[in-house]
Amino acid sequence: MRKEGISQRVRDLVDRLSVDEKLAQIVGFWEGEEGDSVAPLQGELTGTGKLDDAMQHGLGHLTRVYGTNPVDPDERAQYLWERQRALVQGTKAGIPALVHEECLTGLSAWKAATFPAPPAWGATFDPELVERMGALIGESMRDLGIHQGLAPVLDVVRDPRWGRVEECIGEDPYLVGEVATKYVTGMQSQGVDATLKHFVGYSASQAGRNFAPVHAGRREVQDVLLVPFEMAVLDGGVNSVMHSYAEIDGVPVAADETLLTGVLRDQWGFDGTVVADYFGVAFLHLLHGIAANHGEAAVQALTAGVDIELPTGDAYLGPLKAAIEAGDVDMAIVDRAVTRALVQKERLGLLDETFEGEPPSGVDLDSPAHREVARQLAEKSAILVSNDGTLPLAAQDDRHVLGVIGPNADRFQALFGCYSFANHVLALRPGVELGFEAPTVLDALRDEFSGTVSFAAGCAVEGDDRSGFDEAVRVATEADTAVLVVGDDAGLFGRGTSGEGNDSDDLELPGVQRELVEAVLATGTPVVLVLMTGRPYAISWALERCAAVVQTFFPGEEGAGAIARVLSGRVNPSGRLPLSLPRSAGAQPYTYLHPKLGGNGDVTSLASNPPACFGHGLSYTTFEHGALEASDAPTDGTITATVTVTNTGERDGDEVVQLYGHDVTASVTRPVAQLLGFQRIHLAAGASATVEFTVPTTRLAFSDRSYRRVVEPGSVQLWTGDSGTRASEATIELTGPVQEVSTASPRITTAAVR
Amino acid sequence: MRKEGISQRVRDLVDRLSVDEKLAQIVGFWEGEEGDSVAPLQGELTGTGKLDDAMQHGLGHLTRVYGTNPVDPDERAQYLWERQRALVQGTKAGIPALVHEECLTGLSAWKAATFPAPPAWGATFDPELVERMGALIGESMRDLGIHQGLAPVLDVVRDPRWGRVEECIGEDPYLVGEVATKYVTGMQSQGVDATLKHFVGYSASQAGRNFAPVHAGRREVQDVLLVPFEMAVLDGGVNSVMHSYAEIDGVPVAADETLLTGVLRDQWGFDGTVVADYFGVAFLHLLHGIAANHGEAAVQALTAGVDIELPTGDAYLGPLKAAIEAGDVDMAIVDRAVTRALVQKERLGLLDETFEGEPPSGVDLDSPAHREVARQLAEKSAILVSNDGTLPLAAQDDRHVLGVIGPNADRFQALFGCYSFANHVLALRPGVELGFEAPTVLDALRDEFSGTVSFAAGCAVEGDDRSGFDEAVRVATEADTAVLVVGDDAGLFGRGTSGEGNDSDDLELPGVQRELVEAVLATGTPVVLVLMTGRPYAISWALERCAAVVQTFFPGEEGAGAIARVLSGRVNPSGRLPLSLPRSAGAQPYTYLHPKLGGNGDVTSLASNPPACFGHGLSYTTFEHGALEASDAPTDGTITATVTVTNTGERDGDEVVQLYGHDVTASVTRPVAQLLGFQRIHLAAGASATVEFTVPTTRLAFSDRSYRRVVEPGSVQLWTGDSGTRASEATIELTGPVQEVSTASPRITTAAVR
Repeated sequence: MRKEGISQRVRDLVDRLSVDEKLAQIVGFWEGEEGDSVAPLQGELTGTGKLDDAMQHGLGHLTRVYGTNPVDPDERAQYLWERQRALVQGTKAGIPALVHEECLTGLSAWKAATFPAPPAWGATFDPELVERMGALIGESMRDLGIHQGLAPVLDVVRDPRWGRVEECIGEDPYLVGEVATKYVTGMQSQGVDATLKHFVGYSASQAGRNFAPVHAGRREVQDVLLVPFEMAVLDGGVNSVMHSYAEIDGVPVAADETLLTGVLRDQWGFDGTVVADYFGVAFLHLLHGIAANHGEAAVQALTAGVDIELPTGDAYLGPLKAAIEAGDVDMAIVDRAVTRALVQKERLGLLDETFEGEPPSGVDLDSPAHREVARQLAEKSAILVSNDGTLPLAAQDDRHVLGVIGPNADRFQALFGCYSFANHVLALRPGVELGFEAPTVLDALRDEFSGTVSFAAGCAVEGDDRSGFDEAVRVATEADTAVLVVGDDAGLFGRGTSGEGNDSDDLELPGVQRELVEAVLATGTPVVLVLMTGRPYAISWALERCAAVVQTFFPGEEGAGAIARVLSGRVNPSGRLPLSLPRSAGAQPYTYLHPKLGGNGDVTSLASNPPACFGHGLSYTTFEHGALEASDAPTDGTITATVTVTNTGERDGDEVVQLYGHDVTASVTRPVAQLLGFQRIHLAAGASATVEFTVPTTRLAFSDRSYRRVVEPGSVQLWTGDSGTRASEATIELTGPVQEVSTASPRITTAAVR
Repeated sequence: MRKEGISQRVRDLVDRLSVDEKLAQIVGFWEGEEGDSVAPLQGELTGTGKLDDAMQHGLGHLTRVYGTNPVDPDERAQYLWERQRALVQGTKAGIPALVHEECLTGLSAWKAATFPAPPAWGATFDPELVERMGALIGESMRDLGIHQGLAPVLDVVRDPRWGRVEECIGEDPYLVGEVATKYVTGMQSQGVDATLKHFVGYSASQAGRNFAPVHAGRREVQDVLLVPFEMAVLDGGVNSVMHSYAEIDGVPVAADETLLTGVLRDQWGFDGTVVADYFGVAFLHLLHGIAANHGEAAVQALTAGVDIELPTGDAYLGPLKAAIEAGDVDMAIVDRAVTRALVQKERLGLLDETFEGEPPSGVDLDSPAHREVARQLAEKSAILVSNDGTLPLAAQDDRHVLGVIGPNADRFQALFGCYSFANHVLALRPGVELGFEAPTVLDALRDEFSGTVSFAAGCAVEGDDRSGFDEAVRVATEADTAVLVVGDDAGLFGRGTSGEGNDSDDLELPGVQRELVEAVLATGTPVVLVLMTGRPYAISWALERCAAVVQTFFPGEEGAGAIARVLSGRVNPSGRLPLSLPRSAGAQPYTYLHPKLGGNGDVTSLASNPPACFGHGLSYTTFEHGALEASDAPTDGTITATVTVTNTGERDGDEVVQLYGHDVTASVTRPVAQLLGFQRIHLAAGASATVEFTVPTTRLAFSDRSYRRVVEPGSVQLWTGDSGTRASEATIELTGPVQEVSTASPRITTAAVR
């Protein structure tokens, strides 16, 4: 439990509460959500009870008060304050509910700011900017009486076929860990608890299919999948963690005491709450088959260390109470969860709140500050993957004809991921307006370019309707440059092409979009391909044939302008791929963190290396890396690596200086490349800067044959550049004995720029 | 070491041998194989030394004396006897070499019989027939002075993209285990040692790429991948095991003491030799990066439990000797391997052989007995996947025009897998004749059918040459029925489309074969598609559009006639799929042994279930399954399940009665279906038979949370039919306490037919 101990007040509460009152504190209630499928089996698992009945003994969580209907936040605040007052005044224990909400890319509420999707955060390689975003989201939540946000997602991408890749930050555990930790510290700086999702393994599902079993050994779990969570717990001080739906090597995490208690609490000292992914406890019975009924499922989850069942107690409370009455549960296990729930409420100030005051009204959820951070994230995350010199386009050439084509050019939904309010909820309730301004890429290009901007959608994201191709070809033929804006439609469970439950079988652009691009390419007009996607797609063909390719992951409410400015050159692109572009679906799973035998090689006729690798990204200027200077270090020390980078082109620009390493010989196989550190720097044309990385050797730690996490002595190749290209390199020796890594060891590389 | 102890003679030998003589006993020599690439990095790792020099201190193994050149076996026997005499008479220790050879689908020697490939063995569901094959192969080897065969392959197929699927028996560990065990007992009945390949994990490589890292947890390794090896060790008494090239969760098996000594010897009591997969020890340094040089690699492998380095000591002997001289090796570890090598030679009678007699000559390696077993295997393994009534064709209709089309129709190589002499070796030496009779499918159809048989290849297996399509379409247009014979070309490392190093990215038929089939389909002539492939391909499109589909895995020297007889109906097809037909490459990896969440489900928009599942196969007659009678059983007992099957059609035929189970609730997730037993029965038209399965409950064992292998009490659904279709079902209870499974427990389901 909490390091500082549990207060007498919480102890007294736990002593005083009846069983019904205790159980009420460890469940949520989700009013009015019987039908729509925001979560699997939601219809089956959500009762039709009324909140007033549900809260007669109190209530742990109020689920998604703001986030599931396009209703004005003022109205919801009013409703919320009434419910909270009823809990304080109308129940014996008098404890308000903790209010949680989705908030991955911005608070999930109507009219709230929507930031870029997480792969875009990864692409910025700028954790501090993500921290500012986290603080803004937290501020909005605090202002509306929301106490906990169900974000960020720390799943390390292992297979781009998975639909939820768009919720993930990237393919490297340290990049994910550093960025997610800053999200957490930003949000929690506002007094709102962040929640780490999804602890652990979810992203490594078989064939990238949602919920499919995870084939991973203990070493992969320890050395890759757990790493970002460890960072966010130890360095971010996160207050809540959500278990994942995954089963790893046959054991569903929601029932895995080794992970939920052994690793998370005993090893890492986590002292917050573990919440269930929605209906995750019920799934132990319904989907995993490791519990014969809902009561057994509840007992298994509680025993393993799941404290709060979300989103609602319908399939949990009754069966758990029956199990308690039958003597099948040690009440100490129940009390443990109740205590954690109350400690959290106490820390959040909920035990003292009366809700006598007026509910908030007129909170600006999309303020200029939000817009500014959204803009910076969008601009810094656009990745110029290839360019034959066609980009940047001349914005001020009145005679230039820009043919804008593609289903994502004039659709505001294309700016947003699945876990934005717009696509998560509005898709369920068609015809409702977004509620705030989000210009499309077409709008932005018309603003940005003084020449003629013509448009044809060509086709939809999905489906096989090619009837718009002729018009698209005509627009392209008459244009000097064609800008093809293609990609995904984010949504849920078969509504859309990316997002939760929308996995990809072939990693081809959805629908007939590739055909559309190829039809336009056939006109001979140079094609600038802009990808607004949730996952990286297999686009080797496009890299070979398009004049330029720009990858943006859903870039958020300010994304369209950012794209227009990147195309015009007002913004010099500086995003770097947080995810390798896949060679093909048939080459999956693939990760850049593969040992020598996981890439291509002498031993198969098929290469699986990607056409553009993790860390890759071009600029409108060029950067030269001087000699990499690095010296040997003791195994329990730090490596210092210094490189001077010069902007050798004619435009100002940002370089993301990336430091990689390869442990040449180790007691287990090690990746051919792994990110050790990174630093974004701005360099005026002709300017130089020296970046000095201080890398804790723990960055090179791994689980040895006995699963001890160690740093071994020996040679390490270091280089700057990206994961596949060495701009400047050096080899150092780690010296001294094998060093065991503890939770007290530093984890984060720092960089000094001079 | 051996249960009966080590003889005084071997002890004395080990005491007497010098270090050089000892090391000589634990390596092979592969004469004249510096260049051709039968194994990865062969050129780099094979020296140019002469055998006479190599054997001055003796020699452990003579590598592939018969198998790498199309030379008459008599000539090779002469050579071999001379070398053996030189070892006996010309070296101080006077110990002959152990001679090993490849032999998967028949002895790898010029003119030797070539049986069907292993998936065809699986398709027969007839282990006794495989035992007869194993005995015939062993007999041929014994007659030629070969002591050890490098077969069978017990890798459980986990991903059809892998090129070596064609060397594997199937997707179910028990089917693999039962069939492989019979191969072992058959071969070893002739005094020749079998070798289990590849211990363990090789088939589960990332993305099905050869040698790629294996993502598998300990439970998957124990419950799936190790199972067939355990059966072949404990029930088959195998005398040798080959380590796999694989790295599992970061640890290369060749250096894994836990597996090679802990599991294999300590748990299972294996007392034979562990041999290296070719160059596998060197790969610890070169490919896995867990050894800094060849000496370290040798020490790691020896310590873990690899006794014999194959195929040759070039990169092993010198470095190992240097390590010994430097004191880096405990000589007890060397002596352990030497002792095992000598114990094997003693058991094989090699310590007493003088080779004074005449070498063998005129041995019939392709006798009528070989032909008979090859024919039966081919006939019983052909799988009728779909049929709209077009099959069987009328063989005796003089007016019927059969249009035979496709690149595998008139190519004898299409009958053989990669590890047949023909495709493994002759491909390296073009222009050499096969050396025995192997009619093609076209030849056989011309013999079988009295009508007109016309032919057009249409295209090659590989490449994009469509110039033959017109002729193929003409042949089809003029035919009453088109027989399309398509599939793979087996070979090595980029020579061919299936086999070692020939992985598939897309699971589409290679080259333009699908286009050829579709061009023929467009003629409207009914198409019978015959697949001669090494792996199952994604052919949902063909199943929808072809009149009938017959899957044969490379069917061997008698395969063409068997196919012709299946098409004519003289043979009623009875093969069952040992491998699910994949939905797509993008749906891989997939196994029928998935828990509920590994198939389709409520939680992803994509189904991954196969168009034809493990165990599926049609007949020209129909079988009805009566009620399944099964009773409850104690957890340490046996389940009895009885079903009466009736041939309700008008033709005699074989049914493979398959019994499946599903453990409804367990402490870890369990597959939705698993094979518990099977029995092939022959039923005359109208006849019935009752099959009573006696299933040891260990068939339902799994590794619990503590990795103990247990049988748990609870409900088990049972059914006959195939893995996806329940012909007849029952639910039983396993009663009593959780039961731990020991090596003494029975593993094999028996069936009584009455």
